[in-house]
Amino acid sequence: MRLRNKPWAMEFIDSHPEIREKNPKSWQGKWDERFNKAQPLFVEVGTGKGKFVTDMAKEYPDTNFIGIEKYESIIVSGVQRVIDEPVDNLLFLQENAHNITDFFGAKEVDRIYINFTDPWPKNRHEKRRLTNKFFLEKYEEILKENGEIHFKTDNQALFEYSIESLTDYGFLLKNVSLDLHNSDMKDNIMTEYEEKFSEKGMRIYRLEASLRKQ
Amino acid sequence: MRLRNKPWAMEFIDSHPEIREKNPKSWQGKWDERFNKAQPLFVEVGTGKGKFVTDMAKEYPDTNFIGIEKYESIIVSGVQRVIDEPVDNLLFLQENAHNITDFFGAKEVDRIYINFTDPWPKNRHEKRRLTNKFFLEKYEEILKENGEIHFKTDNQALFEYSIESLTDYGFLLKNVSLDLHNSDMKDNIMTEYEEKFSEKGMRIYRLEASLRKQ
Repeated sequence: MRLRNKPWAMEFIDSHPEIREKNPKSWQGKWDERFNKAQPLFVEVGTGKGKFVTDMAKEYPDTNFIGIEKYESIIVSGVQRVIDEPVDNLLFLQENAHNITDFFGAKEVDRIYINFTDPWPKNRHEKRRLTNKFFLEKYEEILKENGEIHFKTDNQALFEYSIESLTDYGFLLKNVSLDLHNSDMKDNIMTEYEEKFSEKGMRIYRLEASLRKQ
Repeated sequence: MRLRNKPWAMEFIDSHPEIREKNPKSWQGKWDERFNKAQPLFVEVGTGKGKFVTDMAKEYPDTNFIGIEKYESIIVSGVQRVIDEPVDNLLFLQENAHNITDFFGAKEVDRIYINFTDPWPKNRHEKRRLTNKFFLEKYEEILKENGEIHFKTDNQALFEYSIESLTDYGFLLKNVSLDLHNSDMKDNIMTEYEEKFSEKGMRIYRLEASLRKQ
């Protein structure tokens, strides 16, 4: 995603603590108390401009959502989106996903979404891919035992890599789709990228992963 | 595959016991003795007209190959192929893959190939798919501990199904390709179907599966 310099972005998101939680560590293990209702917690890693997670929060009021995005110049669009269309079951964190285990307690998260994440195609950047073993270890720590990872991408190589990385780690895969927009998948909420890519006729790949019972 | 009635087929393949082994049960656990050399054993399930397995046998003389095909009217083409281009590290079985554990001993097989198998798209035919749990149990029995299944298909739904079925059973997946003929895969030996489908620009899907170490 192209980063524009937005000097006002930090000030803007700081002025909306009801939408962007600035101190996620202080809520680790007790996000139920931070939201209006104690209900399942779904987290999107690399939430971008927040369209997907905001649409999900509107569609599923009985779930709490958290969208994590590293760049303030991007997440500012998500904050603006929630100002325009308020929802009370969604928070944004402007944080690095590397630190995700600092923000959530063990087995606190019901589901993790990873959507159209940077493919980091160079081998030397493999560790940055959000489906790399390094991240899977962190997800395992915070996911409930029956928790799931839902993953969508337009990037064929990243999808191939992720199938291998997930099964190597011990995840089972289900609801695999190699062409989501020509499948019978229902209730698919689209991201900004997904709208753009699928309009161009590009394939969207999708899978759900859950940890094998020990 | 369209089945033509070939009344002469049975007689023809019966007259070539050096190419089609008629009594595979008698060699269970001791195929090394049936071949000229004791070397790794690769088995293709649903070998069709035998192009793939014959080309493989020529390419890899240090491996023994067995191609299993149910229909005599089809495997007759494989027998003819070997008559035309003799190889001594290949045998055909005209048998039903259901009975595969009768033909091979426990941990006797190094690799199983499943290429462009019938997708059996109807749910009620799921058990007939060669990547169904029912077959995976049989493959596990005959595969060596580090044995592998190599699977290729043009059928998207069958590939999606197989990813789920294999990971559910406990297989790891590697060298996954969602578009084999536009990848950097080397040394790919093509089947008859693969030549036809890839010429039409259809995607070929491929994966390798191995059992998780216990």
